[in-house]
Amino acid sequence: MKNKMIQKPTLIIDKEKCLRNIKRMSEKAKKSNVKFRPHFKTHNSAEVGKWFKKFNINSITVSSVEMALYFAENGWNDITIAFPLNILEIDKINNLAEKITLNLLVENIEGILFLAKNLKYQAGVFIKIDTGYHRTGLEIDDILEIDEIIKICDTYKNIKLKGFLTHAGHSYHAKSKEEIKNIYKESVAKLNILKKRYHDSKFEISYGDTPSCTLIDDFSAVDEIRPGNFVFYDLMQYQLGVASFDDIAVALACPVVAKHKNRNEIIIYGGAIHFSKEFLLRNDNEKFYGYLVNIDFKNKNWKIINKENYLISISQEHGVLKVEDNVFDNINIGDIIGVLPVHSCLTMNLMSDFLTFDDF
Amino acid sequence: MKNKMIQKPTLIIDKEKCLRNIKRMSEKAKKSNVKFRPHFKTHNSAEVGKWFKKFNINSITVSSVEMALYFAENGWNDITIAFPLNILEIDKINNLAEKITLNLLVENIEGILFLAKNLKYQAGVFIKIDTGYHRTGLEIDDILEIDEIIKICDTYKNIKLKGFLTHAGHSYHAKSKEEIKNIYKESVAKLNILKKRYHDSKFEISYGDTPSCTLIDDFSAVDEIRPGNFVFYDLMQYQLGVASFDDIAVALACPVVAKHKNRNEIIIYGGAIHFSKEFLLRNDNEKFYGYLVNIDFKNKNWKIINKENYLISISQEHGVLKVEDNVFDNINIGDIIGVLPVHSCLTMNLMSDFLTFDDF
Repeated sequence: MKNKMIQKPTLIIDKEKCLRNIKRMSEKAKKSNVKFRPHFKTHNSAEVGKWFKKFNINSITVSSVEMALYFAENGWNDITIAFPLNILEIDKINNLAEKITLNLLVENIEGILFLAKNLKYQAGVFIKIDTGYHRTGLEIDDILEIDEIIKICDTYKNIKLKGFLTHAGHSYHAKSKEEIKNIYKESVAKLNILKKRYHDSKFEISYGDTPSCTLIDDFSAVDEIRPGNFVFYDLMQYQLGVASFDDIAVALACPVVAKHKNRNEIIIYGGAIHFSKEFLLRNDNEKFYGYLVNIDFKNKNWKIINKENYLISISQEHGVLKVEDNVFDNINIGDIIGVLPVHSCLTMNLMSDFLTFDDF
Repeated sequence: MKNKMIQKPTLIIDKEKCLRNIKRMSEKAKKSNVKFRPHFKTHNSAEVGKWFKKFNINSITVSSVEMALYFAENGWNDITIAFPLNILEIDKINNLAEKITLNLLVENIEGILFLAKNLKYQAGVFIKIDTGYHRTGLEIDDILEIDEIIKICDTYKNIKLKGFLTHAGHSYHAKSKEEIKNIYKESVAKLNILKKRYHDSKFEISYGDTPSCTLIDDFSAVDEIRPGNFVFYDLMQYQLGVASFDDIAVALACPVVAKHKNRNEIIIYGGAIHFSKEFLLRNDNEKFYGYLVNIDFKNKNWKIINKENYLISISQEHGVLKVEDNVFDNINIGDIIGVLPVHSCLTMNLMSDFLTFDDF
């Protein structure tokens, strides 16, 4: 495949697949009557953000104050920053709180006391709960801290306690779909214990992570879902059993620059500064960084080349493809080969620019 | 440590260390009477590039046509693109060849025939030789191809054959300094077999990779060296025994956002989109992504906190530090903690902006 518009590694987004992915998640949320607050860190793009508007999505999640500022500038006015409060950014947080409906995450007394003292405009606060991922957050047994945070929230008029938020990131390490579903159930059960403890129906439960939100259909036990990766999916989600190849909406189109017949390897222009160094393991325990697709620019789609053909290693700009004989013979220097990335969030962050099939 | 200029993950470059690193390598090259053509992919920054000018460095290496265009715009007019010729970028290559002294890498007949047909201005060509890394390049036994490439180079007036170039990247997998030195010796011996075969003293040998160029003192067997990483070094070079902590010239300053006493873990704002996901293994086979330093902005330096304190895991924006009791107690929410990165090239690529101690 050749295409005169592509001369260097270029991210191609299949917009139709994205719209389908957004529609599916949006309808599930609607059916369960929960708020859908997609995480925009996956794309971090005002243009992709617009695609969500078609589904009447008005509230979003981001992972940094910077990202909140970017989307606020692009017309989004209901944003949760799903990252522990960074007190050093209080000036920017106040700028945001003045202009938009802003929610922050707090998980310690230091944080909430700082907000009590320094928040100049009203903002919502979610208490970040660790339901088993053990990255960060309070555990449901940390009753003293949770009580204290709630007490402080009640005292200060600029702080509006929203409820409890979790990101059950351990779903990414699950070995089966069943395990992912169980993580959802256990996490939600824990959050509901908290909700019950405080006898307060105003307290919302906000739930994250694409694996759970994709596999669960009935969200009635939570108030809000915040998946992000689902808009693109990727090989990590494929390997988890969460997404099919057909759900994956991004591919990196890379020029072929060299071939090595003696080891069935093909060198592409496309490396760590395009894909990121996120890898998965094959059945034989060999690392890989992507599967190959033939991109058909005319018919606006791509087709997976079977899994015995893959991106076996990457350095800064070089990628090494390991391929079967017949694939080797059909790929020539100067061709463009597509690669499905392992982790679309990191690939999108590195590429930032992209094309859709409409651009060809 | 706090500093009001730092509110989010910020790359700090110790310029004095960089100058010392550049001076040391530059003097070694001078002593061996070889050309020093540093690889600028490590920093990819016009500002850092200027620091090399003090040492009369006028010729550079880059890893993409894009990077060559960037440095050409910033006044560099002798550039080798040390990446296999990407024929799809021929228009930009011609733009460059018209304006500056440009060297390209060729490693197959397709590439050299394409240049013969499409190169509109004179450019140098190095034949890329694989001396054992087995990423890409011709091997010295590929005599038919090498003969043919040389013959074609001789026929076309726009192609000036420069010689043989290698990147002995297998030095990054060496288990000892001795092994790195042996890789250098074996690689150089191979390249000199080629040089001798063609009885042509005009043919240069161009040699890359920071591990070898740091450990070798006598470069008299080559004509040019192209190390890149040495300007910053990093933990990968430290673990190889190539750099001391004191040679490492970059640290990422990260805000502390949460603490978890029960597992001696501290959460920083600083993750995969700042560090990259490059990791190293500790003695106990545990992955790590960085070592910690206390940054002293007043005295313009940083001091390593011992190696039992490290960045144990990263997700998109979160970093998790595993620390000792006394370190845990001395770090507070809202502090800035410094982290030495595993792979400075990738960290610099992700951060792009930086501060030096002069900015404080």
